[in-house]
Amino acid sequence: MTSSQAFLKDFHDVAAIGATPANGVDRQAATPEDKQTRDWFAAYAEARGWEVRVDGIGNMFALVELVPGAPYVLVGSHLDSQPLGGRFDGAYGVIAGLHAASRITERLAASGGTPVFNLAVVNWFNEEGGRFAPSIMGSSVFAGLMDEDAMLAVQDLAGISVREALDGIGYLGTDQRPEVASYAEIHIEQGRILEREQLPLGAVDYSWYTQKLDIEVLGEQSHTGATAMADRHDALVAASKVVLLVHDVTKKFTEEALVSSVGRMTLEPNSPIVVARRVHLVADLRSASPEIVSEARASLLADIDAIAREHDITINVNDFDIRGIQYYPEEGLELAEKVAAELGLGIRRIQTMAGHDSVALNRIAPTVMLFIPSVDGVSHCEREFTRDEDMVAGLDALTELGWKLVHGALTDQATGPAA
Amino acid sequence: MTSSQAFLKDFHDVAAIGATPANGVDRQAATPEDKQTRDWFAAYAEARGWEVRVDGIGNMFALVELVPGAPYVLVGSHLDSQPLGGRFDGAYGVIAGLHAASRITERLAASGGTPVFNLAVVNWFNEEGGRFAPSIMGSSVFAGLMDEDAMLAVQDLAGISVREALDGIGYLGTDQRPEVASYAEIHIEQGRILEREQLPLGAVDYSWYTQKLDIEVLGEQSHTGATAMADRHDALVAASKVVLLVHDVTKKFTEEALVSSVGRMTLEPNSPIVVARRVHLVADLRSASPEIVSEARASLLADIDAIAREHDITINVNDFDIRGIQYYPEEGLELAEKVAAELGLGIRRIQTMAGHDSVALNRIAPTVMLFIPSVDGVSHCEREFTRDEDMVAGLDALTELGWKLVHGALTDQATGPAA
Repeated sequence: MTSSQAFLKDFHDVAAIGATPANGVDRQAATPEDKQTRDWFAAYAEARGWEVRVDGIGNMFALVELVPGAPYVLVGSHLDSQPLGGRFDGAYGVIAGLHAASRITERLAASGGTPVFNLAVVNWFNEEGGRFAPSIMGSSVFAGLMDEDAMLAVQDLAGISVREALDGIGYLGTDQRPEVASYAEIHIEQGRILEREQLPLGAVDYSWYTQKLDIEVLGEQSHTGATAMADRHDALVAASKVVLLVHDVTKKFTEEALVSSVGRMTLEPNSPIVVARRVHLVADLRSASPEIVSEARASLLADIDAIAREHDITINVNDFDIRGIQYYPEEGLELAEKVAAELGLGIRRIQTMAGHDSVALNRIAPTVMLFIPSVDGVSHCEREFTRDEDMVAGLDALTELGWKLVHGALTDQATGPAA
Repeated sequence: MTSSQAFLKDFHDVAAIGATPANGVDRQAATPEDKQTRDWFAAYAEARGWEVRVDGIGNMFALVELVPGAPYVLVGSHLDSQPLGGRFDGAYGVIAGLHAASRITERLAASGGTPVFNLAVVNWFNEEGGRFAPSIMGSSVFAGLMDEDAMLAVQDLAGISVREALDGIGYLGTDQRPEVASYAEIHIEQGRILEREQLPLGAVDYSWYTQKLDIEVLGEQSHTGATAMADRHDALVAASKVVLLVHDVTKKFTEEALVSSVGRMTLEPNSPIVVARRVHLVADLRSASPEIVSEARASLLADIDAIAREHDITINVNDFDIRGIQYYPEEGLELAEKVAAELGLGIRRIQTMAGHDSVALNRIAPTVMLFIPSVDGVSHCEREFTRDEDMVAGLDALTELGWKLVHGALTDQATGPAA
């Protein structure tokens, strides 16, 4: 079995954990299925003699010691998924990271070279945010962007806290976090650009501006039968108009310049024969341009205000989870392009509309983020798909990138020719 | 304390069970709060030496034995409420029934007269249907309109069955049901008609035609950030259009000739950063005219079909919970009018848009349903309100009606002048 075949076998084995009938996975953060992938990750590392650490927010590190006492090049992504999510989103990057680390240690053993840094493969906790909001939680705590105690207190819809859930699966750790030298992550694109241009690789140059709106529609509870239509203050009717506004505001801008959806909405009391008194919903706005998001937000606030007046009800809107554009370092983009050229793989610069752990790491260390193609651009669903040959090409690129990083690329400690 | 004062004290005492901060109650079927009202009902009956029975679907009967072996005039309503419901809906009719029975027994003891029937006050199980659907469950099982075993297997959103919930509060009974001679119920109007016409009483002549539509919108799950707008099949956007259609279809008819709302809607996966794959909602259509409901339904089906095509998604619509117009017997209306005239109270014939336990009982026994005014017509909410003097006038009318019924009114066994 070649190392590519070994990688593909591991990838498809992990895809069987929490597998759903239509080829997806359901492995939300800190569930029994998440624990299974974590156990698999730990077993992979321990079989190679790598130390496994778990920190206070459930991030897992597999430490590959190459230079005693040196900082670490981190390579990783996340093994958690959305409910009925795809088997590539996150898991691909972690498993590719483990196999890249294996290849690098083998090559070092054969060549006898001396790197500058240690290497660690990471499985970040709760990147998806489907069960516990906000998303990108573990890497943000690691990067000092979110408070650990506050995140441990976050509850899911059933009232279970992050602390309780992590403790319940045995992954609430106390280990020291490794010192980070640089960070690399590989992920599926979740869009159509690479597929359309038939390119195997993308190098992320910046992340889109994103923000959410927390919207609370307060009507009056009444009887769906006995209350006259004229006397109803139906929170759901007003909320439905808000959902359509959030969808239609994208049409005010160039095609695909703004994406915008409501993904979460809850009704109270949610009884078939009671007009809703309260509807809570979350709108998600993203664009490469902060000005477009700002303009869309202003337009929505004005239109929502008009709906509230029309229905004689209250609608409260609050901004949250605002994430500015993050530029990835030019040196990292050039390094990725160099790796691709050496391997004979096509590459282009590309933006990410989705959030990733690398967006958090990019705030504290030199970071490179690679994309591989997604068939049909679909993601966060069971139909998500990437071909084996694209996964293998990405692994090759991540291996070369990791090799250069442990030899000091992107830091001031480069040790000369390292490829 | 007069008997009216005693009634009002009991009414306001019961309103403290499961009381909510804004003067409502939250006593959903077979919850600990429902158990407290049931215990209160049983204690009231036992203090007067009345036998308490609980049947296999949790209906409670307080048996006032007047004529050993004779069938029973049933008088009652329900003590369960909607979530954050009003304190009058249902509870008023049960407590008025208990006090009417007390007055009738006292008058019989004083007069020494001989009635034809026994009397039983009833607390029907789960009239509201907010926790366990369908509504009007206990009285419908009693009337043979719903299957007891099927209803015991119904589950709430947490997966708890009616059988488990009733057993859990100690009210899954095995007692024999009393044989019914006739039925009387008094209830708040839940509309504005009596208030507007300043009338203390309404006699229900028929119930509106009602039907529900179970609507399932099937889109495709995707990423709220990474998926292009053009590639989304957002189930919530289509569902929001359906909600507005259900609301707006009423405008095709004479004002208030049709009422129509969506009260329940659930999203899957309901994650802030995932476009919904499935939205399930329930629409409730009601009119005095079956033709109007039929026309509205046809219009909705055509418009929903167009939405499904426009969004390239599937929308499944199923009819359920269809309840035809129920006419209450003319003799009962005339009896109610006679009672009102004797007491000097104004009365009018009125329709009910809401379902009631009397709609089920009307199918198996001569039935009379009385309404008293609702301030502002609001119901199924904490702001629901009826004035003390209107409740007392209603109790007087129910007492006289019960008196006539135990003496054989509405049956072939009337025993001559009974007032």
